[in-house]
Amino acid sequence: MSVAGKENREEGRARLWTGARLATMAAGQPGLGIVEDGAVLAENGRIVFAGRRADLPAAAAARAETVDCDGRWITPGLVDCHTHLVHAGNRAREFEMRLAGASYEEVARAGGGIVSSVRALRAASEDDLVRETLPRLDALAAEGVTTVEVKSGYGLDLANERKSLAAARRLGELRDMRVVTTFLGAHALPPEAAGDKDAYIAQVADVMLPALAAEGLVDAVDGFCEGIAFSPDQIARVFERARGLGLPVKLHADQLSNLHGAALAARYGALSADHLEHTDEDGAAAMARAGTVATILPGAFYFIRETRRPPIDLFRRHGVPMAVATDCNPGTAPLTSLLLAMNMAATLFRMTVEECLAGVTREAARALGLSAEIGTLEAGKAADLAIWTVESPAELVYRMGFNPLHARIRRGQ
Amino acid sequence: MSVAGKENREEGRARLWTGARLATMAAGQPGLGIVEDGAVLAENGRIVFAGRRADLPAAAAARAETVDCDGRWITPGLVDCHTHLVHAGNRAREFEMRLAGASYEEVARAGGGIVSSVRALRAASEDDLVRETLPRLDALAAEGVTTVEVKSGYGLDLANERKSLAAARRLGELRDMRVVTTFLGAHALPPEAAGDKDAYIAQVADVMLPALAAEGLVDAVDGFCEGIAFSPDQIARVFERARGLGLPVKLHADQLSNLHGAALAARYGALSADHLEHTDEDGAAAMARAGTVATILPGAFYFIRETRRPPIDLFRRHGVPMAVATDCNPGTAPLTSLLLAMNMAATLFRMTVEECLAGVTREAARALGLSAEIGTLEAGKAADLAIWTVESPAELVYRMGFNPLHARIRRGQ
Ligand SMILES: [Zn+2]
Ligand SMILES: [Zn+2]
Repeated sequence: MSVAGKENREEGRARLWTGARLATMAAGQPGLGIVEDGAVLAENGRIVFAGRRADLPAAAAARAETVDCDGRWITPGLVDCHTHLVHAGNRAREFEMRLAGASYEEVARAGGGIVSSVRALRAASEDDLVRETLPRLDALAAEGVTTVEVKSGYGLDLANERKSLAAARRLGELRDMRVVTTFLGAHALPPEAAGDKDAYIAQVADVMLPALAAEGLVDAVDGFCEGIAFSPDQIARVFERARGLGLPVKLHADQLSNLHGAALAARYGALSADHLEHTDEDGAAAMARAGTVATILPGAFYFIRETRRPPIDLFRRHGVPMAVATDCNPGTAPLTSLLLAMNMAATLFRMTVEECLAGVTREAARALGLSAEIGTLEAGKAADLAIWTVESPAELVYRMGFNPLHARIRRGQ
Repeated sequence: MSVAGKENREEGRARLWTGARLATMAAGQPGLGIVEDGAVLAENGRIVFAGRRADLPAAAAARAETVDCDGRWITPGLVDCHTHLVHAGNRAREFEMRLAGASYEEVARAGGGIVSSVRALRAASEDDLVRETLPRLDALAAEGVTTVEVKSGYGLDLANERKSLAAARRLGELRDMRVVTTFLGAHALPPEAAGDKDAYIAQVADVMLPALAAEGLVDAVDGFCEGIAFSPDQIARVFERARGLGLPVKLHADQLSNLHGAALAARYGALSADHLEHTDEDGAAAMARAGTVATILPGAFYFIRETRRPPIDLFRRHGVPMAVATDCNPGTAPLTSLLLAMNMAATLFRMTVEECLAGVTREAARALGLSAEIGTLEAGKAADLAIWTVESPAELVYRMGFNPLHARIRRGQ
């Protein structure tokens, strides 16, 4: 998977953080992988040591610039593995109308709904998109996010999907953020398709996806499998093409009804299936077998006042890894706080502190196919860190609307 | 009502904000009191003009330092009218245990619950409290809050209630923030009272309240009327003393059950009754007659997973003014975002954008007895402003975890 960035700017200078408590989130360790008197040593943008200060290799430490963390906690840099961050305009007017009692039909007549986001994105230039998106990206970064996934899906034709993905790539050049792109042509039917979903899906699979992949704009391929979007067969058509191109897939699955999207995703070895409010036990079992991550999106659940919760217990029982993400989007989750997403996952879905923290680090990395690169504090991984002024990592989940980030480290700097 | 602050530092310099759109929130005007091509002129810390630029008095404008707002929106500085901001420690461990399946009894045995907050506060010095609270205060200020109410209620004896209120006063000296103090001795029964609520209430009403009022530490008096706290008769005992001292009252009322706290509060002409999930029509009618504000606290509702919503429609029907506040406290609402409180009031309780914005400005001011001083953009009021980079005020309610504040103005500066 190609990742845009500024790897060439990585500096060789070694840095050492001591006086820290670590939540390494390493898979083999119990709980959060806590190290009380910990140290992290980075060289050339990579972690070369993360563990007990007593075990630190003395020679390597001696030549490093040292930062005393004064008892603060270090976690892996956070990973937001499901966003629609690149979009134009907002749907605050629609929100306001609905609160004032307007029906969905009235909102649609007033120009609301996803069509309004498509119209706004098409009217925006790539520069406009970048300019509009940067404040959202900066809000995530301010909370220690060092990797963000960004989907297309409001362009819905080749030129506008390209514009969206190119804007996403630009974000990673303008900010010290790892940006992973996902092509979501199969998000909604554009107005000009005049209701012909099969014809549109053919365009997505046979024209848009190969072209955008050839341009290096696509790290993964996503779809929206739902009655109001596309059928399992239509999604499979897109996934087949992705497979042919060697691209990983993921899926918006079983959010509003059970079309067995989770099982479909698993059948294609998907990195993740996302939302999953209506997923059944067969779906969870299939995901477990395929190693497909369940990406939990409580912000959308909260915002659209969904009442059916994703089957967290099923995922636990079958050993399905769970990620947590913002789903940042203008229609159903105008959310730019991954900390708040964790609080919602805990409060609304009773995910534990450990599950929430793993969900925005180790499991979110897995949902992006980046387990070898990010998501834990372990030697060999990128030195992407978040340093927090908290007494315990649980505070990161417990607080609402408070940002205790002390420092954000990308590639060791 | 005395308000600590730095009024002596008010500067005479006139300042003018133009190129702005105003949401004046003035009571006589429809909706948000919107002025499209607006201007605000401040002198000596007070608004001398807020309205259409075309109507600006030319002579006054000519001598003012001018700030072009570039089309941004100006609202009154936000008012958080119900917080327990001064507290020691946090209850993240308790949160974590409950998510992991611990019962309330197990949490209590592990030292959790309100008793742990009382213990922590008593162990802290006034300096400790100030130091711990400043980051929370700064989080509110960063979102345009210019006035905050702060309750005592974790001290539960004279010395510790004094320490809490003195710390609250200090906050207003250390930051450019209007801090209003509330004595909440009748919050919970301290361990040393050994179950004797009447004896403790006598202490609150006859010893603590008169002493602290004499020291100028008390702007208003609050209580917690609930089965797990104090009865209506016990609260009335405290309110009688407050009346004798000429202090306004407010009440944590009808949160978990209907003890007719709203009606009790109204009987004493309370500034506000707060929470109100179980308030009935008689309570709402009594509040309307008394001019008592309904302070809606969705953060606690969300955090403790309450299911019964406050009767917003009843309050509308009876013309009860509604405020919205964070209720920031370590046990049931570790929330330091008034913007998020608005989103929750809208999303969870279906309060309209107009109700939410009035709830954190005009009606919150009313809930503090400060209607003449703050809460709207009108000539004569303090020049406490918030300037926002948004396309419409609805965005302030719609977004989650995003802070579009451009500038916060206190007393014209
Ligand atoms: Zn999504
Ligand atoms: Zn309270």
